[in-house]
Amino acid sequence: MLTRATLTNDGRTIELGWEDGTRCRFHAIWLRDNALDDKTRSAGNGQRLITILDIPAETHIGATSMKGDALEVTFVPEGKTVSFPVQWLRANAYDRDEPRQPGWTGDVIQRWTKATMQNSVPRASYAAAFHGRGILREWLSAVRTYGFAVMDGLPAESGALCKVADLFGYIRETNYGRWFEVRAEVNPNNLAYTNLGLQAHTDNPYRDPVPTLQILACIENTVEGGESSVVDGFAVAAALQGENPDGFRLLSSNPARFEYAGSSGVRLQSKRPMIELGPDGELICIRFNNRSLAPTVDVPFAEMDGYYAAYRRFAELIEDPAFEVTFKLEAGQSFIVDNTRVMHARKAFSGIGKRWLQGCYADKDGLLSTLAAIEHDFREAAE
Amino acid sequence: MLTRATLTNDGRTIELGWEDGTRCRFHAIWLRDNALDDKTRSAGNGQRLITILDIPAETHIGATSMKGDALEVTFVPEGKTVSFPVQWLRANAYDRDEPRQPGWTGDVIQRWTKATMQNSVPRASYAAAFHGRGILREWLSAVRTYGFAVMDGLPAESGALCKVADLFGYIRETNYGRWFEVRAEVNPNNLAYTNLGLQAHTDNPYRDPVPTLQILACIENTVEGGESSVVDGFAVAAALQGENPDGFRLLSSNPARFEYAGSSGVRLQSKRPMIELGPDGELICIRFNNRSLAPTVDVPFAEMDGYYAAYRRFAELIEDPAFEVTFKLEAGQSFIVDNTRVMHARKAFSGIGKRWLQGCYADKDGLLSTLAAIEHDFREAAE
Repeated sequence: MLTRATLTNDGRTIELGWEDGTRCRFHAIWLRDNALDDKTRSAGNGQRLITILDIPAETHIGATSMKGDALEVTFVPEGKTVSFPVQWLRANAYDRDEPRQPGWTGDVIQRWTKATMQNSVPRASYAAAFHGRGILREWLSAVRTYGFAVMDGLPAESGALCKVADLFGYIRETNYGRWFEVRAEVNPNNLAYTNLGLQAHTDNPYRDPVPTLQILACIENTVEGGESSVVDGFAVAAALQGENPDGFRLLSSNPARFEYAGSSGVRLQSKRPMIELGPDGELICIRFNNRSLAPTVDVPFAEMDGYYAAYRRFAELIEDPAFEVTFKLEAGQSFIVDNTRVMHARKAFSGIGKRWLQGCYADKDGLLSTLAAIEHDFREAAE
Repeated sequence: MLTRATLTNDGRTIELGWEDGTRCRFHAIWLRDNALDDKTRSAGNGQRLITILDIPAETHIGATSMKGDALEVTFVPEGKTVSFPVQWLRANAYDRDEPRQPGWTGDVIQRWTKATMQNSVPRASYAAAFHGRGILREWLSAVRTYGFAVMDGLPAESGALCKVADLFGYIRETNYGRWFEVRAEVNPNNLAYTNLGLQAHTDNPYRDPVPTLQILACIENTVEGGESSVVDGFAVAAALQGENPDGFRLLSSNPARFEYAGSSGVRLQSKRPMIELGPDGELICIRFNNRSLAPTVDVPFAEMDGYYAAYRRFAELIEDPAFEVTFKLEAGQSFIVDNTRVMHARKAFSGIGKRWLQGCYADKDGLLSTLAAIEHDFREAAE
């Protein structure tokens, strides 16, 4: 319960105190900009109806009062009184003192290794996820938390992988098509279309924006070998940072370059770091792909040796079986990876039998939006 | 002409000297990783065939010799000799000393204002761009350089805007569809679907990854008002930085939050800065949208006042007519914006007559790839 509201700094800030001793300050301009009344925000769609320029720069709080579960605030010079639910104020409090180490991730992310994941791979059947919103929620939530999940029970036929994307969002079409074939070819324009093993990698780092999700579905897999594996790039990055903080700094503070020009009419290029941090140090994207890494030309000469040593160590950790979770896709099985986090690999396979997979890309905005909407509906139904 | 190659640091580095006095150092490990021979890179598709772990950590250069226009380098302990064209070495040199101010952009980007752009809006007719690769190249190049361009001569019919995307890449489908209607509605779920003016903004900052291109095409426009305008976010950001470097720092070093939940089943959220810099300080993305800006909860309390002052000033500059280029779309006209850079706005319009636009999203990877491929073909044809 809110027990105290004190104007400070001539009403440019307000300090709130709760029964449990929590103390929390807000700025008048922040409160005014985020006012919840229907002149400030559309009651229908929640969008803000005013711009920052509609709010006087000298805005401060003239008066305040507690009314039940809400705080009423009168803004001067507008003379406008707005009610803020106390619960909303707590949920949106920004007056925190949390120094964070670069590379941090939010609570929703759980890093994993072979030891913690090999026997508990998140998995759902397509029919169950299609018909059950609770099942779909769990499966999408696993993708958010762990960065990958398996889906069983698809038709073992061309294009079936699109059904997976349809569960939550939209396919990202590229020069490879809405989806593409992954099977051994005689003159492949991409090494993925051979029977060679592929080092764990993220897909298409040469594309900006990078596809943030990839789905791979199996139509036939009767070869020797050809298992799939996944590696948690966030876990590997943390391991690198633990043993070599300066190496982590070098890979996150210098851009790499990636390129692909394997097909006629296609010359893709990007400039992004292997380990991308947000401006507040949050770990937001891993890009790792030996095949498409272009010459690194943005690292200062004096740091290049250290950069290469860090890149080598990052690669060693990615190859470490302790980080690798392996499974063999059977016909009708698929998996999805968060391509900003989880690397995938393929073991070499022999020419006897057939291995026919299809792949496609999609984006996380749709997946996370669908998950948030289901979670919202479930909460509303529970209340 | 290369005149000197000196091994330094026990062959871990090499120093090259040119006739014109240019001096340039390379690391042995960098040269080995970027070797151009067909054991290192696929002759067919250019992809790297080896990983960093295939290269000994102790790699150094044992011997070197100049052979015509190439430098031959023998790597120890592999005993492998690789030839590097001198031209390639110059093009990929990384031994530079270029301290850059945060917010820099490459030579390919030209910032503009009303004074420099209002009378020279880049423009092509659809038929000319469809049939002429030179015209298409110029139009795509304008999008790369200026962040927007107009296209005339589309059929004034539903879906015609997809033809523009087909010229260079692929539509990004979202919850709004492959394309969406922009016309006044009675109960709109988005303020874009009213006759109100819209402050200059980038689209969908609540989506991560953000759509990097937007196309808006006009099918009918017989209202009073309803002009379109565009503002170069990179020019405005530079202006802000010029007068208020600390404000620029605050907007680029702190994430903002954006959200949209106007339709059932959709709850989009993102956390990205209004001014996004790469790890080397390159200006890479502007996000600005008063309607979908969520409460800012990632700015330290002590910096919130300064952050809001910078946000206000950024908004004032964006509204400054000196940055605004205006045109009125007629039926069959469209324009494209680089949604990571150029903001667009709409003037209010009256209810007399009809204003019917359609919009869609696409991505820059395809546009820049198509442009690079055309440029490559033209260079090859010229040689």
